[in-house]
Amino acid sequence: MKIGGTRYRSIWTEESPRRVHIIDQTKLPFAFATLTLSTRDDIAQAIRTMQVRGAPLIGVAAAFGVALAMQRDGSDAALEESIDILLATRPTAVNLAWALAAVKLQLSTLPHHHRADAAWSLARKLADEDVATNEAIGEHGLALVRAMHEKLQRPVNILTHCNAGWMATVDWGTALAVVYKSHDAGIPVHVWVDETRPRNQGLLTAWELREHAVPHTYIVDNAGGHLMQHGKVDMVLVGADRVSRTGDVANKIGTYLKALAARDNGIPFYAALPVSTIDAALENARDEIEIEERAAAEVRTIAGLRTENALEAASVLILHPDTPVSNPGFDVTPGRLVTGIITENGVFAPEQLAPSLSWVAP
Amino acid sequence: MKIGGTRYRSIWTEESPRRVHIIDQTKLPFAFATLTLSTRDDIAQAIRTMQVRGAPLIGVAAAFGVALAMQRDGSDAALEESIDILLATRPTAVNLAWALAAVKLQLSTLPHHHRADAAWSLARKLADEDVATNEAIGEHGLALVRAMHEKLQRPVNILTHCNAGWMATVDWGTALAVVYKSHDAGIPVHVWVDETRPRNQGLLTAWELREHAVPHTYIVDNAGGHLMQHGKVDMVLVGADRVSRTGDVANKIGTYLKALAARDNGIPFYAALPVSTIDAALENARDEIEIEERAAAEVRTIAGLRTENALEAASVLILHPDTPVSNPGFDVTPGRLVTGIITENGVFAPEQLAPSLSWVAP
Repeated sequence: MKIGGTRYRSIWTEESPRRVHIIDQTKLPFAFATLTLSTRDDIAQAIRTMQVRGAPLIGVAAAFGVALAMQRDGSDAALEESIDILLATRPTAVNLAWALAAVKLQLSTLPHHHRADAAWSLARKLADEDVATNEAIGEHGLALVRAMHEKLQRPVNILTHCNAGWMATVDWGTALAVVYKSHDAGIPVHVWVDETRPRNQGLLTAWELREHAVPHTYIVDNAGGHLMQHGKVDMVLVGADRVSRTGDVANKIGTYLKALAARDNGIPFYAALPVSTIDAALENARDEIEIEERAAAEVRTIAGLRTENALEAASVLILHPDTPVSNPGFDVTPGRLVTGIITENGVFAPEQLAPSLSWVAP
Repeated sequence: MKIGGTRYRSIWTEESPRRVHIIDQTKLPFAFATLTLSTRDDIAQAIRTMQVRGAPLIGVAAAFGVALAMQRDGSDAALEESIDILLATRPTAVNLAWALAAVKLQLSTLPHHHRADAAWSLARKLADEDVATNEAIGEHGLALVRAMHEKLQRPVNILTHCNAGWMATVDWGTALAVVYKSHDAGIPVHVWVDETRPRNQGLLTAWELREHAVPHTYIVDNAGGHLMQHGKVDMVLVGADRVSRTGDVANKIGTYLKALAARDNGIPFYAALPVSTIDAALENARDEIEIEERAAAEVRTIAGLRTENALEAASVLILHPDTPVSNPGFDVTPGRLVTGIITENGVFAPEQLAPSLSWVAP
């Protein structure tokens, strides 16, 4: 997507010497900076400190990390060590483990001197596949937005929660792929951007949309229901962390509240995600998924820029140290509130999801 | 209610010389400070700068302002001037206009030298009436909480939004009157405190509850639906800015989302308010009330304490100056989602409200 008129991916490469470039996401949205990563340890550090973040993106970054390691030493020992180090950077990230397992499987049978090139190619292929998947999600969603625009004959107002944008993927994003594809196709869209406390990922979404020149308005998480009551939202569109075979959507905390308001006001609610997000073994996500309780510090302090000097990063403490905090990271929107699941293979109503998955069902 | 073990009202008086004391609410919850107000202009300044806030409280404060003015000069001219000055401090506050009209009506027929005493007495009476009203609201709500505790045989978990606490009234508050009365009666309660972006009034609620030693947990506005899905909320209890004859509740933005989640999970939703909040002429609040669009600055910056030095106030800017913001201040929860309206006259289901108001109906 575009930043200041220039087209970017969230990760890109250079050939001689082989190096990886990323956008330093810890600085966003308050500053834009890129980083050049020349070694496996540079990559590991970038993943560990969340300079790269987002499930698909860190899997790709880790694959590049193995490739850079193999250039220095293509031995089995170096391969094992690199995979261990990269895996330890974000131990619970499923995509990271999956990408590293794929790299290991492919490299282990190759002669040592072929491994660097093979790993580099595989990493580039993983990156391109992520882009293609997201573009396909975007195209399927675009058809829904186009139909809505043709019916309404005015800009389509889309409410989104959290950041399911291109910065969490190699390019395009998931929910925002639908927005970008629609916008780029000339369909007028306007996005209501939920702040998404406690981590305020809405700031990232607003940053992405501003840089790509998509009309948008930032709102606190409390506002969406009121906007829906007054006809100001035509569609709710979110990403997902995990989806059950019945269409239950586990996503950032607060998604469920927006789904309830959408249903109460007759507004369609869509989740956009790659098929790999669907857990075919999961029947009732509310009862079967354990929701992560995250650090209270996320609630207690808020990061921004000094009001006296907007070039300087700062954070404020809002809570008394004795005030207890609960900070669940995700919630589950039951399939009964979901209009459709937008994937790279098409759009599925919750009840169509299980049949579409029959080849992977338990 | 109690602060650090000492019993306070939000406004109190001293007799010789006559002076008014308040808690400086602009410093809360980050610091506790009281102010002594000796003149009408002190009072006007305190209302204007929101050192006193909350509809019932500023009406009472203004009445004391007239009384202090009358001590210096009991003339008609001084009375008119004082009322004009005090009314201009918060021009849209209905309670302020109502309290000043009551004072004027009572004083205008009195000899000049009796006016200071009469105004002082009236102001004290308004304060005491507010306390009595809120205590009655609390007692009626207490019966509901007691019944729930007897059924559950464990602490009752109450979720609240915004601050309907004693700091917005002379004492007890409205929704929190129910909590305080229950707690003081020995019924174990635990309060989930919604942050209530953008102004974070949940910080005030958490401060009040901590000082009065009521168990509570602070959560972001996104979390409540998830907690309700998992049986962690037994009752939603909020205040109200305006209530229709059909039981529609206009309250702080985000209330509607919690009412939807309560209904989806079979949890009762109550609003607690004095009868004076009910607008008997209002039939459909969603369509008939115009919701105030508040300043974008409330969303763009967040106030707190420096993380490096928690004794120093600070605020951070979170949004790019070019990012558009919408900031509706209130929303309307339709009566169909409301279990009961708790007033000083008892608890009414939405459909019982209009008959109970027949004596004031249009």
